[in-house]
Amino acid sequence: MPQYVHGGDVYSHAEQYGSQPIDLSANINPFGMPESVKRALHAAVEDCVCYPDPFCRAPRRAIGRAESVSPDWLYCGNGAADVLDRLAAVLRPKTALLTAPSFAEYERTIEGADIRFHVLRENEDFAVTERLLGEITAELDAVYLCNPNNPTGRTIEPALLNAIADRCAALGVRLVVDECFHDFLADSAQHTLAARLSHDSNLILLRAYTKMYAVPGVRFGWCMTSDTALIEALYRAGQPWNVSVLAQACAVAAAEEKAFAEQTAQRIAAERAYLREQLSARGFMVCAGEANFLLFYAADTALVQRLAARGVMLRSCANYRGLGDGWYRTAVKTRTETTALLAALDEIRKEDGV
Amino acid sequence: MPQYVHGGDVYSHAEQYGSQPIDLSANINPFGMPESVKRALHAAVEDCVCYPDPFCRAPRRAIGRAESVSPDWLYCGNGAADVLDRLAAVLRPKTALLTAPSFAEYERTIEGADIRFHVLRENEDFAVTERLLGEITAELDAVYLCNPNNPTGRTIEPALLNAIADRCAALGVRLVVDECFHDFLADSAQHTLAARLSHDSNLILLRAYTKMYAVPGVRFGWCMTSDTALIEALYRAGQPWNVSVLAQACAVAAAEEKAFAEQTAQRIAAERAYLREQLSARGFMVCAGEANFLLFYAADTALVQRLAARGVMLRSCANYRGLGDGWYRTAVKTRTETTALLAALDEIRKEDGV
Repeated sequence: MPQYVHGGDVYSHAEQYGSQPIDLSANINPFGMPESVKRALHAAVEDCVCYPDPFCRAPRRAIGRAESVSPDWLYCGNGAADVLDRLAAVLRPKTALLTAPSFAEYERTIEGADIRFHVLRENEDFAVTERLLGEITAELDAVYLCNPNNPTGRTIEPALLNAIADRCAALGVRLVVDECFHDFLADSAQHTLAARLSHDSNLILLRAYTKMYAVPGVRFGWCMTSDTALIEALYRAGQPWNVSVLAQACAVAAAEEKAFAEQTAQRIAAERAYLREQLSARGFMVCAGEANFLLFYAADTALVQRLAARGVMLRSCANYRGLGDGWYRTAVKTRTETTALLAALDEIRKEDGV
Repeated sequence: MPQYVHGGDVYSHAEQYGSQPIDLSANINPFGMPESVKRALHAAVEDCVCYPDPFCRAPRRAIGRAESVSPDWLYCGNGAADVLDRLAAVLRPKTALLTAPSFAEYERTIEGADIRFHVLRENEDFAVTERLLGEITAELDAVYLCNPNNPTGRTIEPALLNAIADRCAALGVRLVVDECFHDFLADSAQHTLAARLSHDSNLILLRAYTKMYAVPGVRFGWCMTSDTALIEALYRAGQPWNVSVLAQACAVAAAEEKAFAEQTAQRIAAERAYLREQLSARGFMVCAGEANFLLFYAADTALVQRLAARGVMLRSCANYRGLGDGWYRTAVKTRTETTALLAALDEIRKEDGV
């Protein structure tokens, strides 16, 4: 089996330690699924005797309403990762610009392309700055951005993001913006490029219900673009039944739960501030992330293993391009998980005589 | 949206007619999901707060036990169609041999390859014969066979199938055998190549729980091969979380339900004989299929539309390579569905003054 480079592998933890961990390695809403989503999943079990709708009509209608976007501009997949795979198969970029660090799946899906990495700087707290504009040139076929960025949690300043999109549109460079953590932002409306879709057919926005609605096991993600020829090509880029009946039902229910998302974002913001302060107080260098996770640096390069032995799963960021040993990402969950993490860290510090 | 070429689109029917049809266009077990599978799906809803196991450890263990095959020889996907997509991405055959008619997804997944079609003959009742052996040459990279074949329902005589596999192995031509309807055969043990796997690493067998366990909406399929380097490559050929938590739980439960499959195969065999006799008695030419569907010919090229207006969905086979107008496939379900189909056909015949 190939090496698994992401967080959330509770199965390997359970095999090794014989118990379920407190999982801070995947950035899932700690308040769990809304009851309506759970009910929708149970209700959909009986409907699984039919093939799924290959055109995801019901979820596209529901998301279109929720996002004020035409259902014709939506393509749904088996998680956002499936949409990324299909985008790569359709766009086939020969030359692409990615930031580093960022989500590893962009790079995987366009393997073989000439990939240029815009390295975000630790001394700029990994912010995307105007430096990026200079690297967007006509030779590029695509730019992939993540906003807020995974694993830094940083957002791109809205005026700069629009300038980036303008430049991409002017040069005919496809812009893919992954907004999968967008709904965790306290000021999310400011940070989406959705309003650009109608006049910028060059733009592709990626979304998922995975994190906010705590359904990573269901697999549902989508992209939004006003380039309907691209959407047509996405349908042709793989099997017709990629989105299960259960995932479609889940999405229809989740689309109705905007208030749940807003409440979650507020609660997470408060907990994030507390966790950041507590990590800083313990001497860790913490990035000023705005999402439901925090990137931090610790001199201890064995923190993941030492926390795992104490039942807490953290995400090592050593394998992120642009980071390295000592970088970690922790999800922001509830005070229970925060307390467990801090207690385990304190135990380790005590062991080390800090 | 691209044209949809398969059966089972009850959503378009419902949009057009405002009611749920009797669906004979998809070949799903009419006895529905086993209770254990339903229970497993309900129980798995709570587990969807975690990412799925990217290595499908639990379903591979369960299927390995059920099929007496090493779990290391199994790769699971988001339905057999996902496995076909990944196989195409890994094998990248430049030249491939397919039979016609057969399942349209083989051709779609290897689009761009030089595809040679071995045309099955109506006057041989679409049987695969020794003629095929002569067309397996060293220039080929892959041969795709479907056994029993969709849409004919015909099986390949076991000695011939082994001769085909021997020839492929000798020439280093990959052999992909789709056994997705295998468990509906009354004498299924005779018809699988599973026993060859241990000494033929050239062979890839495709399976799914979709049809037998009536879970097309869940999405679970797998392939079996002793070529573990190929399995490793399949993992790398797309996103790591392609099989949902629900699908994995479903597969674990289905793997325990061999008796359900055997009973279903017996009941379907009896109903198939009756339906075949009744269709023949009405003057339709019926292929001697052995699976849970029958291919037949009718002079009426509008049968699908005329039956749809009467609430019965049939699969037109006009778009199958090697068939054409007038060919239809009907699922074999219970006497209720058979009676509904025959009554609707009789109504149409009466209308036509037959």
